[in-house]
Amino acid sequence: MKMFKSDNTSGVHEKVLKAMSEVNFQHDYAYGTDATTKKAIEKFSELFGKNVDVYFVATGTAANVIGLSGLLRPFEAVVSVNSAHINVDECGALENFSGSKIIYVPNNDGKLSIEDVKPLLSVVGDEHNSQPKVISISQTTELGTLYTLDEIKEMAEFAHSNGMYLHMDGARISNAVVALNTTFKEMVTDTGVDILSFGGTKNGMMIGEAIVLLNESISPNYKFYRKQGMQLLSKMRFISAQFLAYLEEDVWKNNAENSNNMGRYMKERLMEFENIRLKSDFKTNMIFAYMEKGLIEHLLKSFGFYVIDEKEGLIRLVMSFDTTKDDIDNFIDGIVDYYNVK
Amino acid sequence: MKMFKSDNTSGVHEKVLKAMSEVNFQHDYAYGTDATTKKAIEKFSELFGKNVDVYFVATGTAANVIGLSGLLRPFEAVVSVNSAHINVDECGALENFSGSKIIYVPNNDGKLSIEDVKPLLSVVGDEHNSQPKVISISQTTELGTLYTLDEIKEMAEFAHSNGMYLHMDGARISNAVVALNTTFKEMVTDTGVDILSFGGTKNGMMIGEAIVLLNESISPNYKFYRKQGMQLLSKMRFISAQFLAYLEEDVWKNNAENSNNMGRYMKERLMEFENIRLKSDFKTNMIFAYMEKGLIEHLLKSFGFYVIDEKEGLIRLVMSFDTTKDDIDNFIDGIVDYYNVK
Amino acid sequence: MKMFKSDNTSGVHEKVLKAMSEVNFQHDYAYGTDATTKKAIEKFSELFGKNVDVYFVATGTAANVIGLSGLLRPFEAVVSVNSAHINVDECGALENFSGSKIIYVPNNDGKLSIEDVKPLLSVVGDEHNSQPKVISISQTTELGTLYTLDEIKEMAEFAHSNGMYLHMDGARISNAVVALNTTFKEMVTDTGVDILSFGGTKNGMMIGEAIVLLNESISPNYKFYRKQGMQLLSKMRFISAQFLAYLEEDVWKNNAENSNNMGRYMKERLMEFENIRLKSDFKTNMIFAYMEKGLIEHLLKSFGFYVIDEKEGLIRLVMSFDTTKDDIDNFIDGIVDYYNVK
Amino acid sequence: MKMFKSDNTSGVHEKVLKAMSEVNFQHDYAYGTDATTKKAIEKFSELFGKNVDVYFVATGTAANVIGLSGLLRPFEAVVSVNSAHINVDECGALENFSGSKIIYVPNNDGKLSIEDVKPLLSVVGDEHNSQPKVISISQTTELGTLYTLDEIKEMAEFAHSNGMYLHMDGARISNAVVALNTTFKEMVTDTGVDILSFGGTKNGMMIGEAIVLLNESISPNYKFYRKQGMQLLSKMRFISAQFLAYLEEDVWKNNAENSNNMGRYMKERLMEFENIRLKSDFKTNMIFAYMEKGLIEHLLKSFGFYVIDEKEGLIRLVMSFDTTKDDIDNFIDGIVDYYNVK
Repeated sequence: MKMFKSDNTSGVHEKVLKAMSEVNFQHDYAYGTDATTKKAIEKFSELFGKNVDVYFVATGTAANVIGLSGLLRPFEAVVSVNSAHINVDECGALENFSGSKIIYVPNNDGKLSIEDVKPLLSVVGDEHNSQPKVISISQTTELGTLYTLDEIKEMAEFAHSNGMYLHMDGARISNAVVALNTTFKEMVTDTGVDILSFGGTKNGMMIGEAIVLLNESISPNYKFYRKQGMQLLSKMRFISAQFLAYLEEDVWKNNAENSNNMGRYMKERLMEFENIRLKSDFKTNMIFAYMEKGLIEHLLKSFGFYVIDEKEGLIRLVMSFDTTKDDIDNFIDGIVDYYNVK
Repeated sequence: MKMFKSDNTSGVHEKVLKAMSEVNFQHDYAYGTDATTKKAIEKFSELFGKNVDVYFVATGTAANVIGLSGLLRPFEAVVSVNSAHINVDECGALENFSGSKIIYVPNNDGKLSIEDVKPLLSVVGDEHNSQPKVISISQTTELGTLYTLDEIKEMAEFAHSNGMYLHMDGARISNAVVALNTTFKEMVTDTGVDILSFGGTKNGMMIGEAIVLLNESISPNYKFYRKQGMQLLSKMRFISAQFLAYLEEDVWKNNAENSNNMGRYMKERLMEFENIRLKSDFKTNMIFAYMEKGLIEHLLKSFGFYVIDEKEGLIRLVMSFDTTKDDIDNFIDGIVDYYNVK
Repeated sequence: MKMFKSDNTSGVHEKVLKAMSEVNFQHDYAYGTDATTKKAIEKFSELFGKNVDVYFVATGTAANVIGLSGLLRPFEAVVSVNSAHINVDECGALENFSGSKIIYVPNNDGKLSIEDVKPLLSVVGDEHNSQPKVISISQTTELGTLYTLDEIKEMAEFAHSNGMYLHMDGARISNAVVALNTTFKEMVTDTGVDILSFGGTKNGMMIGEAIVLLNESISPNYKFYRKQGMQLLSKMRFISAQFLAYLEEDVWKNNAENSNNMGRYMKERLMEFENIRLKSDFKTNMIFAYMEKGLIEHLLKSFGFYVIDEKEGLIRLVMSFDTTKDDIDNFIDGIVDYYNVK
Repeated sequence: MKMFKSDNTSGVHEKVLKAMSEVNFQHDYAYGTDATTKKAIEKFSELFGKNVDVYFVATGTAANVIGLSGLLRPFEAVVSVNSAHINVDECGALENFSGSKIIYVPNNDGKLSIEDVKPLLSVVGDEHNSQPKVISISQTTELGTLYTLDEIKEMAEFAHSNGMYLHMDGARISNAVVALNTTFKEMVTDTGVDILSFGGTKNGMMIGEAIVLLNESISPNYKFYRKQGMQLLSKMRFISAQFLAYLEEDVWKNNAENSNNMGRYMKERLMEFENIRLKSDFKTNMIFAYMEKGLIEHLLKSFGFYVIDEKEGLIRLVMSFDTTKDDIDNFIDGIVDYYNVK
């Protein structure tokens, strides 16, 4: 059975799994000093069109928290929207690891605007207040929306002109690149993002998250932050091999294209029902829809998905790299059943 | 080429790798709520002869730090020997994650004694001092030595009678169980250990570390500590599958027996050279030996291993689950070459 | 010149200062083990109508942060309004000291409601989220408003029935007690507050803040939290002596009555001007008023006060224990001048 | 009764107390933006012979911990002797506030040597290890000994040439300056100390500790660290006024001269007894002596002092700014009584 709970209920793309087997030769240097890791990092530099520093870690939370902590002293703060993963889905990991505060602003569509941040800067220099130092945005956002390239660029310029950094949580970055018909270089490097949490796990990898540093002036101390963050894996080559396989176009891109396409297909099928309302015009693999309570209960008997807001009847459906039209048709059949019986 | 740097330069046992492939079916629940994870945890309860709580994590540092932090308020301290992994090899992760202090005592053989701990208890109740709350021992120790079952039991009783917990860093626990010709139940459960960092990575797993809680009264909050510790892997089944395969006797036990046997063989071969002195009488897969500077330099050209103390000429050689007599004979040939030429 | 910036621009009540001189005899036990400290703590128990544990500290931030941290494990969170002192005026001290998160809700009048908290509890038990553990309210609030006794009681009951604690930031607690014509016992003990930050500095003390524990089941470890929080003063008797003098009715009560009365007088005088609008119907020593930009600039030349919102023209005026009608009349004269000239 | 427990059992020098009364005029700017604070800081610059940044705090622990934290990222460590106040008397405050580690070396006389630090630097650059970044020494040490000016200078040069800072815990700095017949400038500025915890409380102040930054390149962010460290006192002028009075020679110097002289007198009197042995040749106000158990018990009935090591019979006697020969003669009489009766 396929699920729609999240894109991490899927397994692993066969090429990724195969690559892991292929580095299971004899012995190799531990802790990321091996040749496979070196190659994988070079592949990142190629994709982003500049020499980037890359640190592989085991979870998206680790990529976000360690990445951000390297930019923050404990009296400094990250600014994000309320719904940001770092704010509501990481059990306070940033606060505990770095001692820093997250200043979050109320938000409806998951996108932070410059106007949201401006008023927060009135405290700069005042010792009574945590000092805003990093702006963190998610691309794709947690609410399935996307920043345009111009919006990212403007946010980066705003951050830099105010002595701040721009961090991007890219847990679903491939879906964004595909949806915007752009490249990693154009969307991340050229817009001026300083640091990126690059996510592969949700798009067909097994354990594949990376901290990507694009700003050369950023702390050269990330190897220490990663180790202190308990994320220095000894047999690193098995992570690196995944990335090497994944970063080929026919994996990351094909996977994201499929889940995005399935997102569109789900959207279209849902729009057949007049009692179901879509939250917005989504372009990636996450669909947010409002349904009546009875229907949600009916569907939960057979399908996995999140109920985001019970009162409002808002649910989230996430397509995976291996989701098929049949999977979606089955789900739609469940809706039809409900209305027929009813 | 095989290395002797550490037992994490090796790859993964074929049965472990195969098990990972076998859970790469369709979709499954994420974050450890899947059936494979449930089975793997049950397997732990079986091995330890009681219902244990088990939390899988990606690194040994994470197992130690998260495991210990669940027992500690920030004003409380862990007591260990100076050479403990938590003290010198984890980049201050415990201090940063928990805010707690490590009180370490000078030590020569890696084993903490009750007499080491007693004087530290004079500060109990005095608010000027971090309060000793957990005793942490490593089995096998970082210096290749072993606690007897009686020593562990006495330490546990001493800890409990002083309101403290006993933590065991078991990064190389299987080597200890095999060397002592005992079982996990006898060595850990029956001696009264409260919490164990169970290590599989160094003995043939790919990513295999677990926090094992043996004391039912211990904080029921470990799921939160693990998530805040950035260690809740989404596609958990790929870790759990490794453990299921690994915990079969023909994997963990055979692997440890081989590396221990190769340790003994290395020891015997080294003893053929009168200019080489062993640090102690080692029984597991780690050998510490004193050699002259020229010989060390000669060997480093062809073999990987750690020089523990350059002045004293102390090196560490670690055998892996796949180390063979040939690998060791090659190393010994290197020594012979040196003395012949010299 | 008197200022209206805050009630900490004032000096010290003469009886408080005198009491400090009187304990400057010879030698006494350090770190709070002296007789004066014992007496001062007994005085608190008397005022609150039950045996309370009391820990003196040097700043209000310390009272809040150490008080809250004793109730929180790092994966647990405090819930407050956005404008809470702990959230916006303490430079992230709570996050860094405890590792915990502050979940703040948008708010207009400084008062947290049960309806604000309820939706936050949907995450209880979910390891992805910081777990709400303490509700923190300020009495008087940072926006000069007050909770009724019933509101406090209901909040305490709500907290307790959900496994949470109720913390009160009482930086201006005496003003609240006087304004509500109640007692410390009725407003704090009888309503079910678990822990209180008792503030004296803003009402005529020199350095006078206390953590008051009203719930006997609360951690007995506060002495360690205070010391680790760098707040164990060696010559404690000079703090305790201040409290002994302050807790006499003719000091704390008279002081608060005067500043409240002056608040009312300021309010009445401001209402004489049709172009000045009060934010609400304030009952303590803080007045929030909207004025035109030119007037604010004119007044800032001669008087100290905070401009809370430059755009909206919102200013804050705080009366002190020694503010007089003349001080206020001077301020009003400044307004008259402005309008006459204009 | 005078005590010998510590130099913080004494009260406050009358000139210090008087200065506090004198700033109890009307209103003044809060949080250290007042004129008295400015003057007090200028006085520090005068004493140290260069423009120094100064941050007043309420406890010696705060001066140490906040001072050090400003120099440390969480993966960096402080190096000290085992007996350092930061290591054993501050309840793990440094670890919790900064997340950093204290690497302490065994020690007998309280003085750290360059030879102690050298071997710790072998881990520089290795991500598995906390990176030594600050060397912390105490002057006077916790064991009553002193560094010579040359020793301090050499330590500073060693620190700087290895990319580290030198911190001095000066809880009893005035006693050291007097004992060495030197000046603050010669002992601290000219030797190259980067940051100093300046203590006044133990030498006649009420609440008088300061972080003194002597190295201009040091983080300009100390105001944020102090606030986040819960140490920004609102009515700061009452601390600053103490310092202004204290930094006159007839207070800090006379006070330290008296306690040092009384130390010498105590030493001389103790040497009259052949059964009493001094630990070393002390030159300040702390005397460590070995006595038989019965005598210690006898003296504890009438006098306050610390028993450092019960087994060895080691006690500590500390003289205060107001200790007199009579106080010491009384103590000596207690010894005479014991031996007479015995």
